[in-house]
Amino acid sequence: MTDADTLLATTRAVRRRLDLTRPVERRLLEECIALAQQAPSGGNRQGWSFVVVTDRDRRAALAELYRRGWERYVTEGIFERPARAADPGARARQRRITASARYLADHLHEVPVLVVPCITGRTDGGDVVVQASQFGSVLPAVWSFMLAARARGLGTAWTTIHLFHEREAAGVLGIPFDEVMQAALIPVAHLVGEGLRPGHRRPLEDVVHWDRWGG
Amino acid sequence: MTDADTLLATTRAVRRRLDLTRPVERRLLEECIALAQQAPSGGNRQGWSFVVVTDRDRRAALAELYRRGWERYVTEGIFERPARAADPGARARQRRITASARYLADHLHEVPVLVVPCITGRTDGGDVVVQASQFGSVLPAVWSFMLAARARGLGTAWTTIHLFHEREAAGVLGIPFDEVMQAALIPVAHLVGEGLRPGHRRPLEDVVHWDRWGG
Repeated sequence: MTDADTLLATTRAVRRRLDLTRPVERRLLEECIALAQQAPSGGNRQGWSFVVVTDRDRRAALAELYRRGWERYVTEGIFERPARAADPGARARQRRITASARYLADHLHEVPVLVVPCITGRTDGGDVVVQASQFGSVLPAVWSFMLAARARGLGTAWTTIHLFHEREAAGVLGIPFDEVMQAALIPVAHLVGEGLRPGHRRPLEDVVHWDRWGG
Repeated sequence: MTDADTLLATTRAVRRRLDLTRPVERRLLEECIALAQQAPSGGNRQGWSFVVVTDRDRRAALAELYRRGWERYVTEGIFERPARAADPGARARQRRITASARYLADHLHEVPVLVVPCITGRTDGGDVVVQASQFGSVLPAVWSFMLAARARGLGTAWTTIHLFHEREAAGVLGIPFDEVMQAALIPVAHLVGEGLRPGHRRPLEDVVHWDRWGG
């Protein structure tokens, strides 16, 4: 039994410590999804779906799209880059994360389960209020899935870069692209080794604003 | 101590059972945010911020924007409507949710704490891959905050409709709108009464697809 605070403090991105040789029991995945379904959704619409991929060929096809997304991510720097850290410790942590993300990209086809959470209703080019409502109606369930997995000795990692090729991924999985939006891709495997520790994080005073920005 | 599965199964939207007379201890809020910071973020950038609003006038101003958003939500039906449920039980549940959402709109200014989670970097009109990356870098932390709150006897509810008036809300809170995007508005108060039960949810087989859509 994991208590609440430990669960929230130690559900880390697991990229290297995924057991690539051991299948994940279907019962465990179902338990995680049943718990994920208890997350909130706008108007309680529960428009989420979970595509759970264990088929070797489909995993390989998704992993190939992921690697193409990864190359684009690292070469084009599409997303905002982290601020150049003055602190050598921060730079070392960032190097470790990049190396572990590359390891995951190289081995993704070997991860026994890839879960693609989806939501009915696309937000391409939409306003922030619509985006926040739609993503707010599926991402809490995704995180609950990952927390439930952690409580069962499973490792997961939140990824999005296969979405550079979302339409091709929809083709691989038969997802009706025009109606259903993919939100992430979550590798799932038994965790290798013992326990996980809380991560290094920014000081609380840097992220909390009392009553007003900068307050 | 709450165990992991109970936490995930019983962190419900609390709209009526919020104690409107009792302040929330700052220490509890800080504990919840410290745990929220352990959530994942793209490239571990931790671009999140939490604006914690207890000031009476600012809460009143946010609540007014929320009510204007609520009116638009109910009159214009901006978001996808739930399918007309054949099942009378489902219709009754939906009526209860609507009534409780209206109660929250009417009383939002009285809720002792309103938390506005934000992320640096806007996605107005953006592609899904960018939206998924940005919202995926703050909404897990928002949900962790709410789960941590639940474990401390606090009630919360995930809302987004103040974002119809996000720019005015940014003005109320001094948030630099062009750089920082608001992702939600979370009322926080001590929970009135005992415990919460898991919610009624769609059957698992409706939301899980094995290996391919419809599989």
